[in-house]
Amino acid sequence: MNISYITIGEELLNGKTKDANTFTLSQLTQKYDFKLIRSIAIPDKKEFILKAIETCKDSDCIILSGGLGPTKDDITDDVLIEKFGNKYSEITNHNGVAKGLYFKKQNIIATPGVPLEFKMMLEKEVFNLLELKNKKNHQVIFKTYKMGEWKIFNELCPNLWEDLERFGKVSCLPVIAGVNIGVSLFDINKKEELIQFVKSTKLNDLIWYIGNESLEEVIIKKAKDKNLKIGFAESCTGGLLASKITDVPGSSSAFWGSIVSYSNEVKMRALNVKEETLKKYGAVSLEVAKEMAIGAKEKMNLDIAIATTGIAGPGGGSEEKPVGTVCIGVATSEKTESFKFEFIKNKEFKGDREMLKERFAKAALYKLLENI
Amino acid sequence: MNISYITIGEELLNGKTKDANTFTLSQLTQKYDFKLIRSIAIPDKKEFILKAIETCKDSDCIILSGGLGPTKDDITDDVLIEKFGNKYSEITNHNGVAKGLYFKKQNIIATPGVPLEFKMMLEKEVFNLLELKNKKNHQVIFKTYKMGEWKIFNELCPNLWEDLERFGKVSCLPVIAGVNIGVSLFDINKKEELIQFVKSTKLNDLIWYIGNESLEEVIIKKAKDKNLKIGFAESCTGGLLASKITDVPGSSSAFWGSIVSYSNEVKMRALNVKEETLKKYGAVSLEVAKEMAIGAKEKMNLDIAIATTGIAGPGGGSEEKPVGTVCIGVATSEKTESFKFEFIKNKEFKGDREMLKERFAKAALYKLLENI
Repeated sequence: MNISYITIGEELLNGKTKDANTFTLSQLTQKYDFKLIRSIAIPDKKEFILKAIETCKDSDCIILSGGLGPTKDDITDDVLIEKFGNKYSEITNHNGVAKGLYFKKQNIIATPGVPLEFKMMLEKEVFNLLELKNKKNHQVIFKTYKMGEWKIFNELCPNLWEDLERFGKVSCLPVIAGVNIGVSLFDINKKEELIQFVKSTKLNDLIWYIGNESLEEVIIKKAKDKNLKIGFAESCTGGLLASKITDVPGSSSAFWGSIVSYSNEVKMRALNVKEETLKKYGAVSLEVAKEMAIGAKEKMNLDIAIATTGIAGPGGGSEEKPVGTVCIGVATSEKTESFKFEFIKNKEFKGDREMLKERFAKAALYKLLENI
Repeated sequence: MNISYITIGEELLNGKTKDANTFTLSQLTQKYDFKLIRSIAIPDKKEFILKAIETCKDSDCIILSGGLGPTKDDITDDVLIEKFGNKYSEITNHNGVAKGLYFKKQNIIATPGVPLEFKMMLEKEVFNLLELKNKKNHQVIFKTYKMGEWKIFNELCPNLWEDLERFGKVSCLPVIAGVNIGVSLFDINKKEELIQFVKSTKLNDLIWYIGNESLEEVIIKKAKDKNLKIGFAESCTGGLLASKITDVPGSSSAFWGSIVSYSNEVKMRALNVKEETLKKYGAVSLEVAKEMAIGAKEKMNLDIAIATTGIAGPGGGSEEKPVGTVCIGVATSEKTESFKFEFIKNKEFKGDREMLKERFAKAALYKLLENI
């Protein structure tokens, strides 16, 4: 069943709010083996709503969200009732006051836009209404890092795309610091054959995981299996590493903690980084990264500690250590080491702070995975 | 100038990837005083691309992204050239290989979908092409907390909406743990009058800020002005608090650090929480929250420390302390105190882990703001 989604609200278009609902819906449709074919964001205006519905007439079902609230800029219900009449049923809202509307004949569903209410209404009510059936997802995903898609398909394995197409529909998704290559199998029984084939190619060296799990999930699973206590000492990632890991349910079984030492004072007080090292090499240095990792390991009694210190910008860069520089320290029971990366080669470009934090975090998580 | 946005890629609809670009574009259009009137996400399919362009013909400009890469599922450029001919100019990509395309006559722009490449191409190239002009934004935003929109407009201030409409177009945006009420002024000179009016109403008690800045930005600004060193001891928020604060450029001037103590061992070792307190009251308790805050203040030499300990779920809840419970500790030079909140009243509902972390973080940030 094809679904189109229309999300209604000025705030999604004027820079105030990030749309969280499309992603929620896309994951749920995938889970229940529906197909989301389109997502449209529009303002609370009648003509926009009607036009969007017109555009989505090619779908088996239209889900709208937003504009059901009690204030006067909420017009979705009025517009729908004017167009489709008042033959609808109400849908329970477990987390708020605005009820959903279900126009059964047209298979049109209106839900609240507040992300929690939207999500719970879909999970608890809407997918039941649509008489969903659970089916298996036949896509195999090869998660790779260290090389871009162009290089993979043109230099490393020039025939890979065609070879994979024998197994199914191929897709290629560049993500931060990696590439995910997906194959939607024509024949579910060929899964093992596909995996063995890919492992026989040069791509194998770049694969860090085969499957749908996130890097954080894989880390927690592996650390838990090996009974390892992991943790961080974070400067430039500013808590993002810990926050990403703790998004994984059950992460407390392996993740012990993180000391976010944004100031040098905290690096010294909470991580035992030596003042001398900070003065001699600067906070962003291989030496400080190493001392931070050692400090975290000792203070929190960890098996593996990863440290980050770098420059996320926009200020703080220099000729020698430009914005985008990060040093990553590793301390395990066997070794301590540190690595330096520069994520912005062009020194003019100021970078984007949040994206750099993401890249720094990804680099640190890959190092953690390699050490588990 | 009205802009419609079309983002192309199967991955945005099949649960693999969150669309980051609509938010980027919505913020940039706002900044440059353009108007984003629609955002559509569709798969890499010719008929979907052509239909979306048809839908967006009511806009002055169409920006497309995605499908310009080197792999075979990238078809955007081919589709555009087939439809509009090869009279286009290329747009420099500062962060990747895929160039953008600008069809000047139709005012259609194709950009890469990778968020960093998309953002930089817009900022450095696209808005110049569109001959943008910087204008002032005439919207005044009242940021409130502690009460929902229904209660505000029906019980607290039943005439508020109409009163505000005398000043301009009113909008109301519920956000996590708060409501933002915006007024787009008809007359920019009435700004002070509007603010004085709102301050004379009962809404005033709920306002924590008037303006466009985020809670984190306001906190950093105020702490910096007062020369205060702030920091956290985090359990259930797992680094999210620190990560949110360090998203603010220049946060290092006031944010000192955070000790993310996910395990009890780290609570004791790195924050000096007493084993006895943990045993007697449990990790999620007012007593432990208080000791965590005191520990963070002492260990990092802070002026204000905020601590969080709670249950983000899905596991770990109990009858007495259900998922959604959080205790927040505060330690300043004058006082130490702690507070308990339950964000899910209905104990059946398991909650969503990431959303609960967000709510916990928001509650802690409000407490921090109150104490600066």
